[in-house]
Amino acid sequence: MRLATQRDGTPDGRLLVVARDGASAALARVGTLQAALDRWTEVEAELRTLAEAVEVGEAPGQAALDVSTLAAPLPRAWQWLDGSAYPEHGRLMQQAFDLPAIETDRPLMYQGMSDQFLGALDDVPLPSEADGIDFEGELGVIVDAVPMGVTPMQALEHIRLVVQINDWSLRAIAPVEMKTGFGWVQAKPACSVAPFAVTPTVLGDAWRDGRVAATLAIDLNGKRFGAVDGAEEMAFGFHELIAHAARTRRLCAGTIVGSGTLSTSRHAAVGSSCLSEGRAIDVISGRSPTPFMRFGDRVRMEARVGDWPAFGIIDQRVVPA
Amino acid sequence: MRLATQRDGTPDGRLLVVARDGASAALARVGTLQAALDRWTEVEAELRTLAEAVEVGEAPGQAALDVSTLAAPLPRAWQWLDGSAYPEHGRLMQQAFDLPAIETDRPLMYQGMSDQFLGALDDVPLPSEADGIDFEGELGVIVDAVPMGVTPMQALEHIRLVVQINDWSLRAIAPVEMKTGFGWVQAKPACSVAPFAVTPTVLGDAWRDGRVAATLAIDLNGKRFGAVDGAEEMAFGFHELIAHAARTRRLCAGTIVGSGTLSTSRHAAVGSSCLSEGRAIDVISGRSPTPFMRFGDRVRMEARVGDWPAFGIIDQRVVPA
Repeated sequence: MRLATQRDGTPDGRLLVVARDGASAALARVGTLQAALDRWTEVEAELRTLAEAVEVGEAPGQAALDVSTLAAPLPRAWQWLDGSAYPEHGRLMQQAFDLPAIETDRPLMYQGMSDQFLGALDDVPLPSEADGIDFEGELGVIVDAVPMGVTPMQALEHIRLVVQINDWSLRAIAPVEMKTGFGWVQAKPACSVAPFAVTPTVLGDAWRDGRVAATLAIDLNGKRFGAVDGAEEMAFGFHELIAHAARTRRLCAGTIVGSGTLSTSRHAAVGSSCLSEGRAIDVISGRSPTPFMRFGDRVRMEARVGDWPAFGIIDQRVVPA
Repeated sequence: MRLATQRDGTPDGRLLVVARDGASAALARVGTLQAALDRWTEVEAELRTLAEAVEVGEAPGQAALDVSTLAAPLPRAWQWLDGSAYPEHGRLMQQAFDLPAIETDRPLMYQGMSDQFLGALDDVPLPSEADGIDFEGELGVIVDAVPMGVTPMQALEHIRLVVQINDWSLRAIAPVEMKTGFGWVQAKPACSVAPFAVTPTVLGDAWRDGRVAATLAIDLNGKRFGAVDGAEEMAFGFHELIAHAARTRRLCAGTIVGSGTLSTSRHAAVGSSCLSEGRAIDVISGRSPTPFMRFGDRVRMEARVGDWPAFGIIDQRVVPA
């Protein structure tokens, strides 16, 4: 099942069930994706029936889909918890910039801004090029209500949807905030989300052990920057990230949990998922670092499961706020 | 104007306008506090008219108020950004535990869990006494929509309500998470909020320079623990905290911004606003540190403006989750 949110002038939009080929869709009766997540076990069967009808072109009101009318699947969420589950990313940053290793055997995680997620084709308004504008290509999951204290195995059952995220980051501010120990506020403006949220089952074998075996192709101004696999070097599965987050809180339905920027020790062959890591590799290799993004620059992200662009395409331009 | 939220089985409850003496209240037509904040300039006059009628006992449907039926003023919010605006708190922690000073001239701030705020009399379910259960007595403000890049002076105009908060903290986890630089997830479970949110104007002279000159009396199991003033040593006013938060993001209506735990260099006379700081003072003074909270322990918090308990009373017991 593949879901999207149509903009309709309200903050949460209208939930669509989308065909596998992305060409058409039909409105779901439940109204919004948040409403569906609030009572997932009640509405799932109805959504699946609608999805089957959409697949054969026979859903009531089914119409051609214009992706430019779509918002993020959840245009706002009550909670966004982003992990950093690829150790190679941390290792490269530490090596290049002579940082102390983060000493922990637990998942790394911060709570980020969740009241606004940009749509996949929206311009990205930011205040200053001097802030070090960077993208972070990630995958994420959306859960229904998760009780406090769940085990990773129990958490697996609460993963309802998988999404593709660009976690915009401002690198001139990030280390300043990180040093305080308080995490990031200014360094993490609104994220962007690819148009389609998919149920884990439609990913088939690519959904395994709480990880997504999809290749995230990232193009910066039309030039390939990275094509990293989401499962290969993910140290903690999403179910483990959820259990970590739920240790002392229950997670509300619609909580989004992110993987952190995809990374691999095979970066020489396939590249990276953020400029900051690319710059770290430049420094380690004695090259002058790739510049951060300028106003007008574009980044395109498309994660493919086999040949299928399951989540659709993020393609955005940064602009002055 | 003094507002509260009546529980009605929905996640956001029903907005009440409450008399200054707290004895009676009337339902507001706008429905919820979030709805009021979403269009504050439209509904403010109507709310003020209702507040005037409530004060003379003549509002339609005005009835006696039972505080045990109240939720937090915002039972959930799209964003909670908590500062740490009292330098003495950091100084004491560093001195007692031989921590490195946090080198920054900017406000300290993290993004916390906002999808659930506990009511003032609710039990506080936590998983383990071994986590080091602690309270943090704070003040906070709630804003309407704040554009990205506002100045502190502009931010002042967006402060619509002032609240009193207990930012529950788990001290065995906090330093572990802080060391990662990612901020706190497990160490910061749901906060509690006192029943009444008040407009800055009703605080009179106690609202000045974006600070609240209220004394926060905290009693632990019936014994006075602290009575710290909110304005005296607050290094950044709420308007400055808001401008800091809005540097790279717009803040949605209903964003709550916290002061951090109230603290003063006059702690020998008036005490502290969290156990952790009290323990730091114990260590510095060569005493054995006050234990953290046990299941069944109670904490009571009441901030007074002159003699007036503007925000009402937080009085809660920690219980096993």
